[in-house]
Amino acid sequence: MKYKEVSGGVCAPLGFTASGIHCGLRKSSNNPDLALIFAEKPCVSTAVYTQNKVKGAPILVTQKHLQDFTAQAVIVNSGNANTCNLDGEEKAIAMCKLAGEALNIPPNNVIVASTGIIGQVLPLEPIQNQMIPLKNGLSRNGNSQASQAIMTTDLVEKVFAISFELGGKPCTIGGIAKGSGMIHPNMATMLCFLTSDVAIDGKILDTAVKSVVDDTFNMISVDGDTSTNDMVSVMCSGLAGNPEISDVNSSDYSQFHQALTLVMEVLCKKIAQDGEGATKLLECQVTGMRHKNQARTVAKSVITSSLFKSAMFGKDPNWGRILCAIGYAEGEFSVEQVKVTLKSALGEVIVCENGRGVDFQAEKASHLLSATEIFILVDMNQGDQSATAWGCDLTYDYVKINADYHT
Amino acid sequence: MKYKEVSGGVCAPLGFTASGIHCGLRKSSNNPDLALIFAEKPCVSTAVYTQNKVKGAPILVTQKHLQDFTAQAVIVNSGNANTCNLDGEEKAIAMCKLAGEALNIPPNNVIVASTGIIGQVLPLEPIQNQMIPLKNGLSRNGNSQASQAIMTTDLVEKVFAISFELGGKPCTIGGIAKGSGMIHPNMATMLCFLTSDVAIDGKILDTAVKSVVDDTFNMISVDGDTSTNDMVSVMCSGLAGNPEISDVNSSDYSQFHQALTLVMEVLCKKIAQDGEGATKLLECQVTGMRHKNQARTVAKSVITSSLFKSAMFGKDPNWGRILCAIGYAEGEFSVEQVKVTLKSALGEVIVCENGRGVDFQAEKASHLLSATEIFILVDMNQGDQSATAWGCDLTYDYVKINADYHT
Repeated sequence: MKYKEVSGGVCAPLGFTASGIHCGLRKSSNNPDLALIFAEKPCVSTAVYTQNKVKGAPILVTQKHLQDFTAQAVIVNSGNANTCNLDGEEKAIAMCKLAGEALNIPPNNVIVASTGIIGQVLPLEPIQNQMIPLKNGLSRNGNSQASQAIMTTDLVEKVFAISFELGGKPCTIGGIAKGSGMIHPNMATMLCFLTSDVAIDGKILDTAVKSVVDDTFNMISVDGDTSTNDMVSVMCSGLAGNPEISDVNSSDYSQFHQALTLVMEVLCKKIAQDGEGATKLLECQVTGMRHKNQARTVAKSVITSSLFKSAMFGKDPNWGRILCAIGYAEGEFSVEQVKVTLKSALGEVIVCENGRGVDFQAEKASHLLSATEIFILVDMNQGDQSATAWGCDLTYDYVKINADYHT
Repeated sequence: MKYKEVSGGVCAPLGFTASGIHCGLRKSSNNPDLALIFAEKPCVSTAVYTQNKVKGAPILVTQKHLQDFTAQAVIVNSGNANTCNLDGEEKAIAMCKLAGEALNIPPNNVIVASTGIIGQVLPLEPIQNQMIPLKNGLSRNGNSQASQAIMTTDLVEKVFAISFELGGKPCTIGGIAKGSGMIHPNMATMLCFLTSDVAIDGKILDTAVKSVVDDTFNMISVDGDTSTNDMVSVMCSGLAGNPEISDVNSSDYSQFHQALTLVMEVLCKKIAQDGEGATKLLECQVTGMRHKNQARTVAKSVITSSLFKSAMFGKDPNWGRILCAIGYAEGEFSVEQVKVTLKSALGEVIVCENGRGVDFQAEKASHLLSATEIFILVDMNQGDQSATAWGCDLTYDYVKINADYHT
């Protein structure tokens, strides 16, 4: 598939504007903490959500609003997760109502999300007071304000967009994401809002999103903790004018799937790279597995291991910890033929073959681990299925951030 | 059950001697690194082992040796795990042969274990050179030398023994354990060697050990990493002279089960308390669950959460992270009625009821979290099943220890 990276994030596709504003829910700074994304017409939309049994109130409300696969706006705040509160759903519904009134659209066409501390009552006044200025700020240049407004412990904005062709028409997918801690998505993740101008049927879009999330957002982990408020939503305006995608076996679907995968994968890597306290992005590529799901499980087991993550921080080629993490991954598979290679921009070293250590230059291996992006190549040598997972190293700063983030 | 704590560890029961010696496998100090436990007659014995698919060679050899539920000695080294080596089994068998020759017993009556770094060839010479002095050092006072010899990153020895009565006869169970990192046992754990003078049938002993391990060693976690070399073994000399336990429905079995639980539980808590970098022991008691296994899963999910562990290090009563970890535990259960209480020697505070936050004094809660033993009481309010799990806080020192422990 031919594509090119474009700027503008969620505002890159035709038909979308965005804005962000500081309303006061986040007290630590004057950065934006309330974001709005708006489509000029109702969009074919879907979302996937956290599998945590403790679900944020906005998740429950958005699930209802997307039953008809239709949405026209996203309202989202940081500084408060609106989770484990008695009046949570009431407040989430009120947020949709406020946005709907300001935008003159039905409240049930609004996607609502919140991120921040769990278990504190969400004050509605700051949102109410800033809704009109927020709406008035909507613009094709508003992506950065919106992406800043959803950050919590994130150090960098996560924005990506690409353009490609479907049926001879230029199409675009763009997105913003947040997430740095409590990252171990299960069927959904963090907050990620995607927009597109592609014309596509609602159920087909839903199928594509669920499929892509399995290989992207469900394959990252910062700390093994699955959040209560994870959500990935996609809104498609259809303004690209491509023939509507209505068949999962069509080549247009396949191209859209590829484009969506690319955007989600880039945003995922940005989240893992900006994991709380992280100094390195870790990418574990598992090949040679009999079943796709087992390849996923093994890749995720490696990048989730605290011992392995600490070793990567210490530039220690302690491959025994990689073997250990492969071995305790669930499922029936053999570890007798496994080959492990450590790789970065600074070099490549085979550390294990046939499940046993091989002689290697420890100094060379340690040097290559001083890079900021490390690839762990695991060949299980028993099939043709593969999967990739992304994580980050475990550092003093992870402990510092999470021991000091007081309630 | 009436019992009293006694000294002597594995040498406390009738018929056992132990010794430890520095043979040179551990290079960082002159502390003992090779231990021997010997019974004056063949013992009814069993063991449980790691479920990691990457298994240390000593695990494979011990499994074979215990097929007949008979053993008379344990040989164990630290400093090298003898795992992921081409000649691992050969070396483990050689260790049994060396011990068997020195003790004049069949090699297949020897339990063998190794702990330390994975993937480095185990040199046999240091063991060979010190086997006779090690054997000559066997004594009723040798427990401490043996327990020191199995330590790696452990800061303290883990020793416990109790005496109790069965059929009018005084009986004793004693044990030593090691473990500080790579602690997330699954069906077995770490190294733990237990001895007893109780008379018991082999299969009955096996049933008891598997049952007790589920509620003790399988309920601790330091870092979520399941080791390749975990093993808990029990040897019973029968010298107490009690009527042989041969029925799981007898009251003697029930008493033995209680005694074994007590010993394993104390050793477990010692391991969690001495977790790498730990400053606090965390005990999560889950009650009010419909199924025992779900209670276990929830308790373990809480004490495994990196975010919760960091909060405990920071004395932060961030109960939202407890709810989050309960919510992502596997299984179908309700989180609507959950009540959470934080408790220590310094006080007790209810932080959550009916799945929602309650008003509490943050200062009081933070103060009680400055104790070195913290209880997290989780009442799920939906059944009568309960379980307890033990863990420790996540600290800078955990990262330091594991980033610096170079291969």
